[in-house]
Amino acid sequence: LSVEEVEVAPPKAGEVRIKLVATGICQTDDHLLQGCFPNAEFPVIPGHEGAGIVESVGEGVTSMKPGDKVMPLCIPQCGECSFCRNPDSNYCQKFHIAEPQNLLPDKTSRFSCKGKQIHHFMWISTFAEYTVVPEYAIAKIDAAAPLDKICLFGCGFSTGYGAAINTAKVKPGSTCAIFGLGGVGLSVVMGCKAAGASRIIAVDINSDKFSKAKELGATDCVNPRDLRKPIQEVLTEMTGQGVDYSFEAIGLADTMIAALASCNMNTGVCVMIGVTDSEISIDPMLLLTGRTWKGTMFGGWKSRECIPKLVSSYLEKKFNSDLLITHTLPFAEVNKGFELLRILLPL
Amino acid sequence: LSVEEVEVAPPKAGEVRIKLVATGICQTDDHLLQGCFPNAEFPVIPGHEGAGIVESVGEGVTSMKPGDKVMPLCIPQCGECSFCRNPDSNYCQKFHIAEPQNLLPDKTSRFSCKGKQIHHFMWISTFAEYTVVPEYAIAKIDAAAPLDKICLFGCGFSTGYGAAINTAKVKPGSTCAIFGLGGVGLSVVMGCKAAGASRIIAVDINSDKFSKAKELGATDCVNPRDLRKPIQEVLTEMTGQGVDYSFEAIGLADTMIAALASCNMNTGVCVMIGVTDSEISIDPMLLLTGRTWKGTMFGGWKSRECIPKLVSSYLEKKFNSDLLITHTLPFAEVNKGFELLRILLPL
Repeated sequence: LSVEEVEVAPPKAGEVRIKLVATGICQTDDHLLQGCFPNAEFPVIPGHEGAGIVESVGEGVTSMKPGDKVMPLCIPQCGECSFCRNPDSNYCQKFHIAEPQNLLPDKTSRFSCKGKQIHHFMWISTFAEYTVVPEYAIAKIDAAAPLDKICLFGCGFSTGYGAAINTAKVKPGSTCAIFGLGGVGLSVVMGCKAAGASRIIAVDINSDKFSKAKELGATDCVNPRDLRKPIQEVLTEMTGQGVDYSFEAIGLADTMIAALASCNMNTGVCVMIGVTDSEISIDPMLLLTGRTWKGTMFGGWKSRECIPKLVSSYLEKKFNSDLLITHTLPFAEVNKGFELLRILLPL
Repeated sequence: LSVEEVEVAPPKAGEVRIKLVATGICQTDDHLLQGCFPNAEFPVIPGHEGAGIVESVGEGVTSMKPGDKVMPLCIPQCGECSFCRNPDSNYCQKFHIAEPQNLLPDKTSRFSCKGKQIHHFMWISTFAEYTVVPEYAIAKIDAAAPLDKICLFGCGFSTGYGAAINTAKVKPGSTCAIFGLGGVGLSVVMGCKAAGASRIIAVDINSDKFSKAKELGATDCVNPRDLRKPIQEVLTEMTGQGVDYSFEAIGLADTMIAALASCNMNTGVCVMIGVTDSEISIDPMLLLTGRTWKGTMFGGWKSRECIPKLVSSYLEKKFNSDLLITHTLPFAEVNKGFELLRILLPL
């Protein structure tokens, strides 16, 4: 990445220009840089875990005004499509996973550099001092929110925490296993704890991650490299019949299958969070005996509606997501940020 | 199959000898004959969809007495194991899917023919005039039940009907698609109708099955061989965003994937009922956007507890499972029964 002087056009009707205060780096940004999004267009401003302050609003914007604290949302909530009107769905049809929202909905960009158009990423492009986003892809949040702390609610934290709360609907007293202790996996640990799980087993091949997992609520930590048996057998033995809920927060076919096999054969629920391009081949008996396998998109949260509530829960200290923050860097060191990410989360 | 004179020993402690009155033929019996159960032992008495009358009871049996109408259960409900004590589970740990219960729990058989031991199948071996079964694998049912009609609650009907009611938990006003219109698939249609689905799309490559599907509640019938596009695309177009619930009642990897892809990408639930030996390879994006994929075992019913209730619902005419009965044959024509099955449900 190179840091460049970019011109950010004023917001058009229905759009908002945000002065960004802080942004997280998510592995999805690295996937973009590695070319994993076949329909992405370059040059592009990455970033999708940001928080900031409204600088100006376009015509017709009524839900926010300059000075409001906001979070741009990588999954919008238009409120009008059939998915937004369905109380069980959080996948707004304005969201386009195949075409990573390289341009704003009117098919133009608000970014230019030396006269050349720069593309948006997921519309919101948070690796910038200013960004322009449609109103329905912005959540207004509590004025007391520390933006440098809650910016990661824009993707990683909400995805993991919601996977436990909304997607799995973890019950009090249940047993859980989390594969992968990056920011998402640790957020799943927090979600399981908040839901009242009695046993939270954290699984990673890097034992250095265990102390933080325990601090956030893990009751047991297991490193598959220390085992002589497959992890699914060990988890089944540890819990009698397998865990009630398992979560895959890595994005590898092998760990997805291990997570599925680790949960109770009749009532277990396995939630797949990590993203992979490769096909997954499973023995159908894993499901036929009664297991449930599901995916999650942004933790099942309806974005505009729920992010402000998550921020309020943070302010009420219902969870300590600050522990997810490992480093804080100035913009000029964005490439160092990616290096640190790749050490922690090798592709 | 050959019809032989078999000696049926009296019930031991905790067992019941049942005079069978009627039995269904299920494709699982044909799987047994075709050698699909690697651990099955021969000679064997197949059959697991029977109903009869208690002839005698062994020591300690208190929940039934001679003369009671009963159904032997291919999935028991011991009431004591951790799965039986879990209100969400119906998979009794006394059930052994890998070893098809060739012998009763004490590892002996009650059947002999010309001095040679004959094996049980799923313990209950209903292709017989008498069978001996553990008490915890028998449901006592209403004395008014017509045994020749409700015998199919022993497997096919309960599996399909329960897949809709218990496993998918179909909501009123929802849309459903059922792949495969054998006895199980038609029972799913009945379950979707009983649950109040507003649109029930029946899918089969044999259009002759459509009239019965419609009689049982299907609102639309689709033959994939009449289409120029993949069935999942057609179902998605028919319903806007895919069905709310899809069911696979065939047992083929291709139709399992098609059923999964046919349901709503964010909130859809796909229930796999059909059994296959082959691995299934899927694109993980099918799940990652939010779909739920799950299997069902005996329709999620706790067998001893729920079968009597299903029989009562039948007597109250809450559904018309009689329409599932295509032929009624005497025992001597059991091979003709399998021929008819193979015409209707080619392997």
